[in-house]
Amino acid sequence: MKKLINQVDRLVDEALEGLEAAFRPYLRRLPDTHVLVRARPKAAGRVALVSGGGSGHEPAHAGYVGYGMLDAAVAGEVFTSPTPDQILAAIRAVDTGAGVLLVVKNYTGDVMNFDLAQEMAAAEGHQVASVLVNDDVAVENSLYTAGRRGIAGTVLVHKIAGAKAESGAPLEEVRRVAADTVAETRSMGLALSPCTVPARGQPTFTLDEDEIEMGIGIHGEPGVRREPLRPADALAGELLERIATDLGLQTGERVWALVNGLGATPLIELAVWARYLDRWSRARGLGLAGMWLGEYMTSLDMGGASLTLSRLDAEREALLTAPCDTPALRQGVNHE
Amino acid sequence: MKKLINQVDRLVDEALEGLEAAFRPYLRRLPDTHVLVRARPKAAGRVALVSGGGSGHEPAHAGYVGYGMLDAAVAGEVFTSPTPDQILAAIRAVDTGAGVLLVVKNYTGDVMNFDLAQEMAAAEGHQVASVLVNDDVAVENSLYTAGRRGIAGTVLVHKIAGAKAESGAPLEEVRRVAADTVAETRSMGLALSPCTVPARGQPTFTLDEDEIEMGIGIHGEPGVRREPLRPADALAGELLERIATDLGLQTGERVWALVNGLGATPLIELAVWARYLDRWSRARGLGLAGMWLGEYMTSLDMGGASLTLSRLDAEREALLTAPCDTPALRQGVNHE
Repeated sequence: MKKLINQVDRLVDEALEGLEAAFRPYLRRLPDTHVLVRARPKAAGRVALVSGGGSGHEPAHAGYVGYGMLDAAVAGEVFTSPTPDQILAAIRAVDTGAGVLLVVKNYTGDVMNFDLAQEMAAAEGHQVASVLVNDDVAVENSLYTAGRRGIAGTVLVHKIAGAKAESGAPLEEVRRVAADTVAETRSMGLALSPCTVPARGQPTFTLDEDEIEMGIGIHGEPGVRREPLRPADALAGELLERIATDLGLQTGERVWALVNGLGATPLIELAVWARYLDRWSRARGLGLAGMWLGEYMTSLDMGGASLTLSRLDAEREALLTAPCDTPALRQGVNHE
Repeated sequence: MKKLINQVDRLVDEALEGLEAAFRPYLRRLPDTHVLVRARPKAAGRVALVSGGGSGHEPAHAGYVGYGMLDAAVAGEVFTSPTPDQILAAIRAVDTGAGVLLVVKNYTGDVMNFDLAQEMAAAEGHQVASVLVNDDVAVENSLYTAGRRGIAGTVLVHKIAGAKAESGAPLEEVRRVAADTVAETRSMGLALSPCTVPARGQPTFTLDEDEIEMGIGIHGEPGVRREPLRPADALAGELLERIATDLGLQTGERVWALVNGLGATPLIELAVWARYLDRWSRARGLGLAGMWLGEYMTSLDMGGASLTLSRLDAEREALLTAPCDTPALRQGVNHE
C-alpha cells in the first residue's frame, strides 16, 4: 500500500486537522470530535444542515460546510459510519433554534446512527428532521444497504437544501425541498481500478487490464457486472440511459448534471464525459441548466467516475444556482 | 492502458469541448483552435494574460481563465507545447489595447513557441511581455529544460498577475509583479506512481511497491532519486526544507502555500500534508497567510503531490487574496 499517510489509525484525525488548516476561513473543528462546523456560524433563526458519513469520500462532506450549504460535517473512520454521539455533538453545535436537517446517505450504519442521534437530540429539545439520499440506480440492494445507495447526488441535496435554509425557510420547507431533490436525482458510476482501504492495505477487488466494474459504489463494494473497457462515450451513454429511464426524463425538461471523479481519474478524462453529456442532453431535447465537473464524492484512490442527473423545477434551479461559499463549491463570486 | 477516452488522437480536442460545456459561464473556445478565452471578456484598457502549455495538467490552464486570472489558455497535445500560431490567435483575441502578458512554464518547447508567438504578435503591433516560471527546486536542468522547470507555482503567478491586471495596472507593472512572484516562489514534488501518456499507452516509468520518485516533474520525466516510501510527514518535511532553504526563508516572513495533487492521490492524503505544512510553518516562525489544497497542476494520472511556498509582501498578499472567479479557483464570494 503506497499512500501519503503517517499511521493508519491516525489518518482521519490528521486529515481533519489538515482540512481545518487549509480551509481556516471556512472550517472549525469542535474540540475532541470529528466534527467540522462553519467558522462563521449562520444567522440565528435559520435552519441548520448536518451531514456526514465515513471518511474517504473527500471533499464530502467537510468540503461542503459553509455559506449556502452545510453547517456541520461529521466524519467517521474510513468507510465507517460516524457514531451517534458525534452526530449529536454536531446538532448541538449548529442548532440556532430553528431546527436541524440531517442529510443521510443510505447505508445501514449511517441510517442507524443518524436515527439514534436524531432521537437523542429530540429528547434534548432539538427539532430535527432528516432526509435519506438513495440516488444510485445501479443496484436495488447492496452489501451495505437495504434499498438503493446514496452517492454523488448527495451534493445536490446539500446545495439545494442549504440554499433553502439560508433563505430563512422553516424546517419543514427545507426538508420538503431536500426530499424533492432526492426524488428527482439519480446517479450511476463505474470503476477502472479499485481503491485501497488503509486499514486493510490491499485493493478491495482486482480487475484485469481491460476490465471495468459497472455500477460501482463508493466503498469498494461490488458493482453490477464486470465487462471489457469500451470507449468513453459508449460507457457514458449507457449510464445516462439508465439514469434517464429511471427518472422518466421527457423532452423539454430541465436538468442539472454532475460528472464526478472517484479519486484517481484525471480531469482531462472527466472532461471527455462532460462533452458527451452535453451532446447527449441536446440530442435528447433536454435543457441542461448547468454542470459540475470534478471530484465531488470520491472513493479514496478509486479510478473511475459517476454521472448524476437531477430534474429541475423553477424552485430547485434557483436554489441550485444561488450563491454558496464552501471549500469545495463556490458560486456567485462578487466581481467588481 | 485503462482510460476514459474515445480515441487517443481526439482526446485533447474532446476534453476542450467538455471543459467549455461544463464551464460555459466562464469559457468560450476560439473556433478551430485549442484556445479557451473568457466568456465575458475583461474591460477594455486592461492588460490581458495568456498562459498555456501541454495538455495533461488540468485544471491548468483552462481552469484559470476568468475574472482575476487569465484571459486565455492555449492547450497543446498531451505534454506537448502549443504551436506559435495558436498562441498568436490567443493574443489577438484577448488584447484590449493595453497589451498582453504571457505566463510561460520553463520548458524548451514552450519557451521557443511562446517566444515566436511574441515576436509575431509584436510585428502585428501588439504590446507583449512575458514571464518565465521556474519554481521547481528539484533539478537545475532536466530532460526538457535549460534551468529549472516550471510547475505548480505557476498558478500563483496567474493569480497575482491576474489581480494586478484587473486593477488596471499597465503592462510593465503587471510583468514586474509576475516576475517578483516567480522570484519568491519555489516548489518540489514526488511521485508514488507514474502517469500513462495516452499516445504511448504505457507508464512513463515503473516503481517498486514501496518505492517513490523524489523531485518528480509534471511530464513523467525522471526525478532526483528513488527511495523507499516514508511517512507522509517525513516526506513533506524534506520537501519543505529544500524549498525554504532555496528561498532563504526567515522567521517572521509571510508565505502562501499550495498542496497540489498530481492526479491520482486523493484529498484525504493531501490533507495529511496540509496538516504537516501548517504545523511546520508555525514551528519555523513563518506567517502562513493561507493555503490552497487540491489538484491545481496535475500530471495526468500520476500518484503523488507537490508543495509550493511563496514569500509574500503586502502587495502580493493583497493580490493573492483578491476576488477571482474561474472554473478552478474562486475567491471572494458575495454572500448576503
